[in-house]
Amino acid sequence: MKLDEVYKSLTIPNNSKLALVVLDGLGDIATESSGWRTPLEAAKTPTLDTLAKRSAQGRMIPIAPGITPGSGPGHLGLFGYDPLEFEVGRGVIEALGLGIDLKAGDVAARANFCSLDPNGIVTDRRAGRIDTSVCEKQVEMLKKKIKKIGDVEIIIKAGKGHRFVVVFRGKGLTGPLTDTDPHREGLPIAKAKGPAKMAKVVAEFYKLALPVLKNCKPANGFLLRGIAHQPAIPSFEQRYALKAAAIAIYPMYKGLAQLVGMKKVEGLANVPAEFEAAVDALAAYDFVFVHVKGTDQAGEDGNFDAKVRAIEEADAALAQLLPHVDVLVITGDHSTPVPVKGHSWHPQPVMISGEIAGWDGLDRFTERAANQGSLGVFEAKHLIRLMQANAKRFDKFGA
Amino acid sequence: MKLDEVYKSLTIPNNSKLALVVLDGLGDIATESSGWRTPLEAAKTPTLDTLAKRSAQGRMIPIAPGITPGSGPGHLGLFGYDPLEFEVGRGVIEALGLGIDLKAGDVAARANFCSLDPNGIVTDRRAGRIDTSVCEKQVEMLKKKIKKIGDVEIIIKAGKGHRFVVVFRGKGLTGPLTDTDPHREGLPIAKAKGPAKMAKVVAEFYKLALPVLKNCKPANGFLLRGIAHQPAIPSFEQRYALKAAAIAIYPMYKGLAQLVGMKKVEGLANVPAEFEAAVDALAAYDFVFVHVKGTDQAGEDGNFDAKVRAIEEADAALAQLLPHVDVLVITGDHSTPVPVKGHSWHPQPVMISGEIAGWDGLDRFTERAANQGSLGVFEAKHLIRLMQANAKRFDKFGA
Repeated sequence: MKLDEVYKSLTIPNNSKLALVVLDGLGDIATESSGWRTPLEAAKTPTLDTLAKRSAQGRMIPIAPGITPGSGPGHLGLFGYDPLEFEVGRGVIEALGLGIDLKAGDVAARANFCSLDPNGIVTDRRAGRIDTSVCEKQVEMLKKKIKKIGDVEIIIKAGKGHRFVVVFRGKGLTGPLTDTDPHREGLPIAKAKGPAKMAKVVAEFYKLALPVLKNCKPANGFLLRGIAHQPAIPSFEQRYALKAAAIAIYPMYKGLAQLVGMKKVEGLANVPAEFEAAVDALAAYDFVFVHVKGTDQAGEDGNFDAKVRAIEEADAALAQLLPHVDVLVITGDHSTPVPVKGHSWHPQPVMISGEIAGWDGLDRFTERAANQGSLGVFEAKHLIRLMQANAKRFDKFGA
Repeated sequence: MKLDEVYKSLTIPNNSKLALVVLDGLGDIATESSGWRTPLEAAKTPTLDTLAKRSAQGRMIPIAPGITPGSGPGHLGLFGYDPLEFEVGRGVIEALGLGIDLKAGDVAARANFCSLDPNGIVTDRRAGRIDTSVCEKQVEMLKKKIKKIGDVEIIIKAGKGHRFVVVFRGKGLTGPLTDTDPHREGLPIAKAKGPAKMAKVVAEFYKLALPVLKNCKPANGFLLRGIAHQPAIPSFEQRYALKAAAIAIYPMYKGLAQLVGMKKVEGLANVPAEFEAAVDALAAYDFVFVHVKGTDQAGEDGNFDAKVRAIEEADAALAQLLPHVDVLVITGDHSTPVPVKGHSWHPQPVMISGEIAGWDGLDRFTERAANQGSLGVFEAKHLIRLMQANAKRFDKFGA
């Protein structure tokens, strides 16, 4: 019997409430430059400290040893979908994040406005980082001119700054295609290569769109990346028998959650509002995913103090959630260590709190405490299964 | 090359003696209700303490993350047989436990005497928990009347209380079949559904047996559960080149050991007698499996003090085994935490003692000590391989 079938056959419903709190890029490393400690160790975290005294801890490998995940695979793994099995193009993630309701088979692409010289050479891949308002105006121009290419519907939506998304909807479309982005200045727009029909549609799209932008300055061109179709992913509810809501501020994380069928909550402005919304969501949902971005941003910036502050802010806001959940997990989708200034493969710390989680005898939740926890080092894709078990949502296997 | 083939090709014989001591349901969790400690931590364990100072420790996942095993899968996993690959029906386990020498292809079922009203509705699924003597008398009545159904031989044997076992032996029989137990009172006996020939035999068995019990009070009916055939399992000796004996008091554990070809030792009354028998068995066998039940029972009862006492009793009896073994493992087949009052998925602690096990620097054998051990958290199915390695029964792989 396959393991996922076993899990499915053992799943039993109950009224427990589960919360997965993801402090993006939480994991860090102690190096000389950071005074041999991590932001989690340096931060004042009364809420996490309280949780640590009734929790099991461990560390999670996001994908496989040594592999640094992007946000897509990082979150899919957390949600229990093997990122090596379920590949999701960046275009799909961006489209979902912008609120486009993708249908199975849609092909989506991230797009950047760029600057082209008279010979069609890319001189600025981000068109001087134009304002969102300019982007919106130009997207409107494109939408007005291009609605269909043959039997393929074209959906265009503006994002922030120079970014927008193009979705191709029609029969027989598949990805992935190579980027039209040459990935450096001084080169022309590249040809998108991949499945024939889709490659032709992209080429045709350029033929129609570039003349529309001809007189726009500085954004007279655009580059496509991550051109891919939405994969068939079994929904979170099918998989776990958990009705799930997603709380996030940034589009991509809402998109990732929506991809597995979570209901996204809109209009949140800051971390305290997110945790308030999480409390509300748990009235109607079994499971809530809360995404906090600040930790990752601080890590990317290499800013130790900012990461400490982001952790402390989340710690303070988290407190209100505690009375409303039976099983609470605190973790990251990966590490974004300050000394690395970017995502990394270092296993992120994870803490599971609940009535029968058991205390590992640890007083704080940190990377080095987690090394001594009962959960050991495990692959992130098992996390939701452990949450189900802690919520007593599994029957016994065999007599 | 498959891993099992690699192990086989590397296996070398020697005269080492190995013992696997299973304190059933040993693993526990520290919660507020237990004063934030576990029974292993609270118990006085001079023998385990001595062992800890020359052992490697770790924790084992019985099946897969979050899955709580029954005793069958729990022990098969310990014996190194992936429980997802080798599924054993409860009827088979019970039949073996009662000393029935099952043959390959036999289909076995657990049976309960029950009470039926005049319309055939189950009014008590356990027939008021009749005495073993009543059960034995009624089983004799059935045996006298029903010896064969067509070419299928029927073997019936009484168990404890209202329990008995029925074995169907004949050509072309296969399981599994659904239970005839409706699993609650107020319903009629269900039809066993499954492979056609076997389903017909079960229906015929009911036709012959119910009239025999017609005037029995209160046990005028019976229910079948876990109807399955004995799976083909490579023997322990084939797999590990270890002649193995099994020391257990309870039928099921003897049955499980017998299923993989261990020689069971009969007639043991208590834990000290079990360890005495283990010492004796090691004169003629390479490997001895010792099963101690008390820890699991105390866990199921939610009785912290009883679990502490069961551990202390085993610890005292264990001492006599030490001079007779080269490689000694102490573990559980799963956790049965006092706060859970039942089996659980929490990884059980494991300790391997031997000349080259290496000391992890830990002074005691407990769940939280084991979290810091060199064995890490690993799947139980690898345990016997580690014992072979510690017994120097593996050659080097590659030059």
